This record gives sequence, C-alpha cells and structure tokens, in this order.
Amino acid sequence: MIINIGRQLGSGGREIGEKLAVALGYSYFDKELISIAAEKSGFNAKFFEKADEDVPKSISGNFLGMPFHFTGAGNAFSSGLTNEALFQIQSEVIQGLAQKQSSVFVGRCADYILRERTDCLNIFICANVNDRIKRICNIHEESENKAKERLEKIDKQRAEYYEFYSGKVWGKAESYHVCINSSVLGIDGTVNFLLELIQKTK
Amino acid sequence: MIINIGRQLGSGGREIGEKLAVALGYSYFDKELISIAAEKSGFNAKFFEKADEDVPKSISGNFLGMPFHFTGAGNAFSSGLTNEALFQIQSEVIQGLAQKQSSVFVGRCADYILRERTDCLNIFICANVNDRIKRICNIHEESENKAKERLEKIDKQRAEYYEFYSGKVWGKAESYHVCINSSVLGIDGTVNFLLELIQKTK
Repeated sequence: MIINIGRQLGSGGREIGEKLAVALGYSYFDKELISIAAEKSGFNAKFFEKADEDVPKSISGNFLGMPFHFTGAGNAFSSGLTNEALFQIQSEVIQGLAQKQSSVFVGRCADYILRERTDCLNIFICANVNDRIKRICNIHEESENKAKERLEKIDKQRAEYYEFYSGKVWGKAESYHVCINSSVLGIDGTVNFLLELIQKTK
Repeated sequence: MIINIGRQLGSGGREIGEKLAVALGYSYFDKELISIAAEKSGFNAKFFEKADEDVPKSISGNFLGMPFHFTGAGNAFSSGLTNEALFQIQSEVIQGLAQKQSSVFVGRCADYILRERTDCLNIFICANVNDRIKRICNIHEESENKAKERLEKIDKQRAEYYEFYSGKVWGKAESYHVCINSSVLGIDGTVNFLLELIQKTK
C-alpha cells in the first residue's frame, strides 16, 4: 500500500509521514527522492535540489484546465536538464520505489504520479497558521515575520508545482482522500487517527 | 458540542450529518433552518427558500479578500427583505439553536456563523464524481447529464455563498478541521470514522 502526503509548510506533514512509515513498517521518501533521482540520472543532486517542487520558470499553470508542458530554452539549467526532465526522472524513481515496497511519499506530486494504482491513500495535512509559524520559527530559528514570509512563498510554490503537473488544485478537499488540520489532535493524535483510517481502507 | 458540515452536492454529506446526529443524540438542522427562520421573522418561508445558500444577486465574491456586503436595491425581494437580511435572521437562528443544544448543522455557513465558539468541529464531505452523479440521479430521478449539470451549478452556488459571507474558500482543506471523500469508506464507514474523531476531540 502507498501513502501520499501533501502538506502546508509548517503543518507537521513531514513528521506525520515519518511516524506513519515507522508505525506501518513502510519506507519513507521525501527529500531522499532527490539523491536517488540524481544517482539514477548521473547528474549532480544540486540540479534536482534547485528544481525541487518547482515549476518551469517561463510558464506556470494550466491551459484550459490541461497541464501545459511546453518548455522554452530558458528553462534549461546549465546541466542541460529542464525542470520537466527532472520531474520525469523523479516520476520514474517514485514509480519504481512504489512497485518494490509499501511506502510513504511526501510531496512531489506522488499522488498524481501514482494515479493509476488502486492502493494509494492520498492525504493532505494543514494546520492553524499560528501553529505553522511557531513550527517554522523553531526549525529555521527565525523571526515570526520571516517564518510567515517563508510559509507564503513555499505554499505558493508547492501549489503551482502540484497544479502544473497534476491539473488538480493543491490543498482542495476533492484532490485527496482525506485532509486533516493537525492542530486539532496534535502530531501524534493525527498519526493515530490516520493509522485507524489506513487500517479501515486496507 | 457543535458539528458543522460543508458538502459537495451528491457526496452524502446530508445523510452523514443525519446519521452522526442520531448516533450522538444531537439535534440535526439543514433545511429545517428555513422554516425556523421564517417563523422567527414572520415572513413567508418561500422568501428564505429562494435565498437559501445564495448570494445577493447584483454582486458576489470578495473585494480584496474581504467579504463585501453592499446590497443594491435590485436585491430586494418583493417581501422587502434582502438576501443579507435573510442571512442575518438565519444566523441568529443558528446561534440560538447552538446555544441551547448540541447540534449538527449542514451548510448555510454555520461554521462561520459559529466561529467564536471553541466547541465546533468543522467537516467537509466530498466524493468521487461518479458516485455523486449516481446519488443525484437516484434522488432526483434524472439523467446523468442533468445530474452533472445540477452538481456543477449547485456547487458553484454553494462556493459563492460560503466565500461571500465567510471570506474563506469553500472545499479547501484549510477552511475545515477535517475533509473526507465519502467514496473511500462509504456513508456508514465515514460516519463511524467521524464518530471516532469526535470522541477524540471531546
């Protein structure tokens, strides 16, 4: 079984994903996908880091509701790889991993990449904005204002990335099987709640 | 405790709300709010029915992210009541009911109207589009095409109504505590799952 997690920055989605993976005995993939994709491609991981959850620079969004895949020359990194080529490599990595083992994937459009599978549970984690700011302040040791700026910037980027490739709206209920605000039950409470749901859907 | 449920048309949100109310011994309010509001106002229920979950006709949406409350003369019904006056009366009814008894409210911006309370659990129910069309066909005894049209029209209207009064995005995860696709566990499975969540938050 595969668990895909979308998440607002600072919502605890990553921690929830890690704890779910431990509890279920599943493999966990988040930033790890970058180094695996880099290794597979033979290119330096820095190209993947730069493009991580980012849309091609010259165009973004959808055209008449269809993801629009034109890539101009301006999108090429000095590596010669476009963001979309990097997305393609990462997609193959995600598909390969999902075929081999029960996994938790965080972000990176994994729900869309694995849309043909019937054994995925797609989750979105949000949280009250104050809790998110507090969490970001702790992780990055920065001021509340900086954390708020970071939150807005990264969420916008994640939304664009998700919508560009999947054609669905990031953070909208109908794009997932279940969405939960982690401020309601806390991180561990949310993990336990999701474990019960996973048991029911198995 | 108060349970507020937003729902896509045909998602089973109403049935889930009714079953939750029965299981919890709570009062259930959906269309009943119309006749109570009408009785309170002394106006005929048909004015409330006409305005039910609908925004003022001459303007809709938000202005710079703020709900915009101007009502032109064109919005007045022959009753002399504007949609906003009806919303106001219905808000008072919802607040009064919530003060008297543990309740389940379906739609009608109850989550926003009761936002000052700390004992609300706000839920959004969606479902796979095929399941929604099937459900609407059964209820209204109409063709799939008609059901699809109805679904799109009513969801648009609900979204506009919710966004106009609450300033939040209808059907977006961050507007609720939990969102669930009722196709995953079915109606009764979703009810049981939500009952467990309600127990945890009490």
